[in-house]
Amino acid sequence: MSRRRLRVTVWNEHVHERRDRSVARIYPEGMHGAIADGIRRELGDSVEVRCATLDEPEHGLTAEVLADTDVLTWWGHAAHDQVDDGVVERVHARVLDGMGIVVLHSGHFSKIFRRLMGTSCALRWRQDPGGERELIWTVNAGHPIAAGIPQPIVIPHQEMYGEYFDIPQPDELVFISSFAGGEVFRSGCCYRRGAGRVFYFAPADQEFPVYHQHEVQRVIANAVAWCGAVTAPNDLPSTRDGNSKRDWYVNPA
Amino acid sequence: MSRRRLRVTVWNEHVHERRDRSVARIYPEGMHGAIADGIRRELGDSVEVRCATLDEPEHGLTAEVLADTDVLTWWGHAAHDQVDDGVVERVHARVLDGMGIVVLHSGHFSKIFRRLMGTSCALRWRQDPGGERELIWTVNAGHPIAAGIPQPIVIPHQEMYGEYFDIPQPDELVFISSFAGGEVFRSGCCYRRGAGRVFYFAPADQEFPVYHQHEVQRVIANAVAWCGAVTAPNDLPSTRDGNSKRDWYVNPA
Amino acid sequence: MSRRRLRVTVWNEHVHERRDRSVARIYPEGMHGAIADGIRRELGDSVEVRCATLDEPEHGLTAEVLADTDVLTWWGHAAHDQVDDGVVERVHARVLDGMGIVVLHSGHFSKIFRRLMGTSCALRWRQDPGGERELIWTVNAGHPIAAGIPQPIVIPHQEMYGEYFDIPQPDELVFISSFAGGEVFRSGCCYRRGAGRVFYFAPADQEFPVYHQHEVQRVIANAVAWCGAVTAPNDLPSTRDGNSKRDWYVNPA
Amino acid sequence: MSRRRLRVTVWNEHVHERRDRSVARIYPEGMHGAIADGIRRELGDSVEVRCATLDEPEHGLTAEVLADTDVLTWWGHAAHDQVDDGVVERVHARVLDGMGIVVLHSGHFSKIFRRLMGTSCALRWRQDPGGERELIWTVNAGHPIAAGIPQPIVIPHQEMYGEYFDIPQPDELVFISSFAGGEVFRSGCCYRRGAGRVFYFAPADQEFPVYHQHEVQRVIANAVAWCGAVTAPNDLPSTRDGNSKRDWYVNPA
Repeated sequence: MSRRRLRVTVWNEHVHERRDRSVARIYPEGMHGAIADGIRRELGDSVEVRCATLDEPEHGLTAEVLADTDVLTWWGHAAHDQVDDGVVERVHARVLDGMGIVVLHSGHFSKIFRRLMGTSCALRWRQDPGGERELIWTVNAGHPIAAGIPQPIVIPHQEMYGEYFDIPQPDELVFISSFAGGEVFRSGCCYRRGAGRVFYFAPADQEFPVYHQHEVQRVIANAVAWCGAVTAPNDLPSTRDGNSKRDWYVNPA
Repeated sequence: MSRRRLRVTVWNEHVHERRDRSVARIYPEGMHGAIADGIRRELGDSVEVRCATLDEPEHGLTAEVLADTDVLTWWGHAAHDQVDDGVVERVHARVLDGMGIVVLHSGHFSKIFRRLMGTSCALRWRQDPGGERELIWTVNAGHPIAAGIPQPIVIPHQEMYGEYFDIPQPDELVFISSFAGGEVFRSGCCYRRGAGRVFYFAPADQEFPVYHQHEVQRVIANAVAWCGAVTAPNDLPSTRDGNSKRDWYVNPA
Repeated sequence: MSRRRLRVTVWNEHVHERRDRSVARIYPEGMHGAIADGIRRELGDSVEVRCATLDEPEHGLTAEVLADTDVLTWWGHAAHDQVDDGVVERVHARVLDGMGIVVLHSGHFSKIFRRLMGTSCALRWRQDPGGERELIWTVNAGHPIAAGIPQPIVIPHQEMYGEYFDIPQPDELVFISSFAGGEVFRSGCCYRRGAGRVFYFAPADQEFPVYHQHEVQRVIANAVAWCGAVTAPNDLPSTRDGNSKRDWYVNPA
Repeated sequence: MSRRRLRVTVWNEHVHERRDRSVARIYPEGMHGAIADGIRRELGDSVEVRCATLDEPEHGLTAEVLADTDVLTWWGHAAHDQVDDGVVERVHARVLDGMGIVVLHSGHFSKIFRRLMGTSCALRWRQDPGGERELIWTVNAGHPIAAGIPQPIVIPHQEMYGEYFDIPQPDELVFISSFAGGEVFRSGCCYRRGAGRVFYFAPADQEFPVYHQHEVQRVIANAVAWCGAVTAPNDLPSTRDGNSKRDWYVNPA
């Protein structure tokens, strides 16, 4: 209900775009550029977006930046191992205290997502040069993340991600994808961890221009808004004392 | 994200207040009056509130009223059986199409709540003349319905509602209450049914001035806002044809 | 852990098999015959199976039969409306008290399933003369209902059932199907209602010999075993008094 | 459905019993001794129980022991930090592959539980010399873990554990406790992680003879049986290749 601008940080490892010509052609401003543009276009004045990448000091995710972030989006693939464990712990703690996080595509194997899920987050996948058609179906009518999204979204060329996907059962399952090869995938998954909200969204691979597709940008923007709709929690372990007095609630002081 | 005013209808069977002097003294404007006042005070300009009661034609819940309602609140106790089945079906269909519903206290046994839950909705209860102390604990940090609520809410005098409460496991459990007698109760429960959101909130009984208590008004207002935060669903059975054509999504027409 | 035989009642409306020659050819002993045979073959001595059909008195579901049933399976399609409301209420009450129920295919629109779900249970569907290929994927590793099932099950010819399927989010989602036409469907869904367990399994249509397929029989048998693994509930509304005494648990008497 | 004996390993850090006289008096054979005895008494011939403690090589949890364990129970408090990270990863991997784990009381802060949950697992607590009365209420009628348990269990003296408890919402919530001081706690929580099942059970503290109480032993035995009722998963990331071929399921080979 707050009218304050949502502060969004778009994080990208930014490796493929500088290494692989095929990717650079699709994302000349980096994948973070395309993702940030989409969020700005969809959410307009209600949002402030900045970017951060792996090769910045502390990967651009200092304590100050995180304290100033309502929702973080995460794209990584080739360099998960190069993400510093201390930064991962810092991001994790911020999520528990209420920051939202939108994890994208190959980010399923990032340290932060596996840390939040508690499982291996492994999945079935297929790399075909031309990719294959993905259909993204909404299975949660009226969920804010599906607002204004066609049923289904058609992505012409995409890398296949298939089940079994080793994640905890989502608190809310919003999207299920099918692929031309017949596989299915839980491609839009909501979780709460501590006071923070987590959304995993499976599209899209670096080899395909999926983040330029309007419906995908809309989903990401919806997810950012949903993950950011967290109000100040009324009871957090990180802000309270240990040993509780008897009947402390009578005189909270 | 819409700035449109939320249209709220506060429904009350309005029997106890006219029959029992003890209740009339606490709720001279009816329980609906107190509930509506609380919502208005908390949500201000963002909301339009009207009331409807059992003895109006069609219980005040005509097709027009429902089409014009984003969130309905429901209080009933003595006259569940007098609610017309046709009206119940109409309310039910509106919830599936996206209207929110906040069911209060003894409304657990209303036709509409049992219809939405699919279970008996029976519970353990104790009627003591003076009631007993209820503590309402938040167990879902950062949930919008708990925003600005003390941990715990202390209700000095209240009828005991205890487990086992025969409901489907809530999609999100927000509050658990304890009573002076030692019982516990899942007192704040979120569900999605179709495109609509349902919130059950256990306080409060007609014999105690609980709806005048500020924290309780705040929870109900939060619940109204949460139940109303539903965007136009992108795929509803009620708005689509039967037999799907093959590859219809390629040319949706 | 009990070694007692599981008592299973296979219910079938038994209309198509007597009316449509194409169906009679596939299921000469009725669909209930094929379903019962599959359960017997898979579960052997641990189970006692009987059948009941629509045209028997009380549809073969008398109070005695239900009291003597641990798990009921339900197939219906053409005659949902002919099922007596009183029988539906009786089945519903037994589920809440602990009887399991496995609802099959077009049973999604049966009175009992809609009663248990509280939603419309509508879905997207396509009737093609030759059907189309369905792949059933397990998304819940280690769930007993998926034990011994290939990943995926391939059903060569089947009617398409697709999302959005208007059900409450399953307590446990076990299977997701894809169809040759690109649709997806939550085809294996677990629920608890009262003390009873509910499993919905989407295959199969009367026009295809799906209940003769071994993997499908195995799933149904697993589902019967899972729905039947309910122990005597320790607290049911139907077996307790109303108004609870203070501190009754100290001397339960 | 398997009749094979369930292989259970009871793990205990075994620090308090050797350091604190008050604890040694209550648990002369160690807490693991009492826990193991309870499981044996309740499950009899259907189970094989062994114990393992922190000061054994690899904490008694070698790869061989874990491969030979269907369900692990975990009690720790004073020495969480002394548990080797490599052993934690080994236990974690076994859970994902299907081993059950029952985490007890102060084990909420163990490395393995926090690893599986992905949250801080912090809670509210109160240490009073005499403890206080805890009532454990079943809120999931018919759940196998509540089989044969009184409603409620009365524990005369116990340390208070209260909300907000920072865990993911349980897949199934079985027990909620109230304390004499008025706090509530989600004291019996089921999760699935990978192919494995996890149960957290809040009682009991080392200073009180709670593991000698029959109802508590019964819950732990029920939880061991439930966590062990996992059949061979039909699709695990750890046992499959990466890059999937197109239409591999047609000729699985």
